[in-house]
Amino acid sequence: MKYLLTLSYVGTAYHGWQVQPNARTVQSTLQDAVETLFGARYPLTGCSRTDSGVHARMFCATLETDASAPQIPPARLPAALNRHLPADIAVHRAEVVADDFHARYQVKWKRYVYRILTAPTRDPFRAGQVWHLPKTLDIPAMQAAATVFLGTHDFAGFMASGSSVTDTVRTIYDFTVTRKDDVTELSVTADGFLYNMVRILTGTLIAVSDGKLTAADIPNLLTSRTRSAAGETAPPGGLSLDAVSYLPWNGEPTL
Amino acid sequence: MKYLLTLSYVGTAYHGWQVQPNARTVQSTLQDAVETLFGARYPLTGCSRTDSGVHARMFCATLETDASAPQIPPARLPAALNRHLPADIAVHRAEVVADDFHARYQVKWKRYVYRILTAPTRDPFRAGQVWHLPKTLDIPAMQAAATVFLGTHDFAGFMASGSSVTDTVRTIYDFTVTRKDDVTELSVTADGFLYNMVRILTGTLIAVSDGKLTAADIPNLLTSRTRSAAGETAPPGGLSLDAVSYLPWNGEPTL
Repeated sequence: MKYLLTLSYVGTAYHGWQVQPNARTVQSTLQDAVETLFGARYPLTGCSRTDSGVHARMFCATLETDASAPQIPPARLPAALNRHLPADIAVHRAEVVADDFHARYQVKWKRYVYRILTAPTRDPFRAGQVWHLPKTLDIPAMQAAATVFLGTHDFAGFMASGSSVTDTVRTIYDFTVTRKDDVTELSVTADGFLYNMVRILTGTLIAVSDGKLTAADIPNLLTSRTRSAAGETAPPGGLSLDAVSYLPWNGEPTL
Repeated sequence: MKYLLTLSYVGTAYHGWQVQPNARTVQSTLQDAVETLFGARYPLTGCSRTDSGVHARMFCATLETDASAPQIPPARLPAALNRHLPADIAVHRAEVVADDFHARYQVKWKRYVYRILTAPTRDPFRAGQVWHLPKTLDIPAMQAAATVFLGTHDFAGFMASGSSVTDTVRTIYDFTVTRKDDVTELSVTADGFLYNMVRILTGTLIAVSDGKLTAADIPNLLTSRTRSAAGETAPPGGLSLDAVSYLPWNGEPTL
């Protein structure tokens, strides 16, 4: 049976989603909970590889059990798994999907949100969940620059070095910069993302806010395909995967 | 010099505010930061003793230095202390007050807010910061019962056993039950609080929501002066000291 799980997690204590040797990851923690519940280790496939310290308010993963596994109805699976998971991970929903469903390859779009706390002092209640940058941001200038990124571009200059990805063309469907109270949110919806792409886009828009770059510079940053031309990489704690969709982008989030 | 500090903290990792042997408290952690910054230990007096696991979105404490201490201007003190404090504590403001100012005795009113998350599954981003109670609450019934507590009453029946307090009369100025998205907030403003009082009031209003008690039972709970008559004690994580005032209550919060 193939379940599609929808979960959320605070990534602060984890080395990202993906299992890796000698490190605590969200996937390995979920796999432990699955093993405790089902009595065996079953494969989990995530929709994305989030980085160390990055969060997810919506993350999808498939769990593939076999005929010998206890038949747990999907409606009861979230609560059953949550009993064996730490408080920083929660499973919200489970549904049964076709055997050939693939949690990563079939994603049509994802939305990452980067949150910047601009209050004069940090907020203990959001420690590690926002980037504390105590200064006034030029939201209109940042939004003007964000808008230039809309559409299909080669984002090679907005990818961290060390990535083995060769196809660096991605389509950004939506990119908004909004302020809610003392938090400025950069929300980027795309068909896919390169390694550190949203954190580099965030650093680039901060450079725009600081007057070091303008919206008119963005086309050159894209055509240069050079990482060093873009802004710095913002820290991981402000970043969260907020939406994943297996339906084509239709201009509206389906949350 | 006597500074009045305004701070906030997530209490999950602390055994409350007050210094105690062999336990990590907010006061002892702040005292360590003061010692690192000023080179000596100076007395801190808090506005309240919060319990283990209870939070503060606004907490006031005085710091009394002597003539040999470095003269740090109050405007620079918050950032200077925050550099030596963990991420779950933040100092937001410092001002100089009269030498005879007392952070606890001169409090005119305080506001505690108890937060209940009623969503079907827990929220990793607010773990330990809300009480997760996945059920529908009867807000109008809870508000009707809350309103009966307004005014001056003997709250002996709403105090945890083991407290040495003898004067159990307190005045509640404001008591509201409101729902914001998936969080129900019980906000209680009073001239003072007994040990566990807000957590017992919360448990009592949950009993009202569950139909085990009604608003009409509240006067009897008060006159009985018996702890066992009231509801259960809600867990500490949902509770936060949200406001402290040294000015008389005038019907409006001064935040």
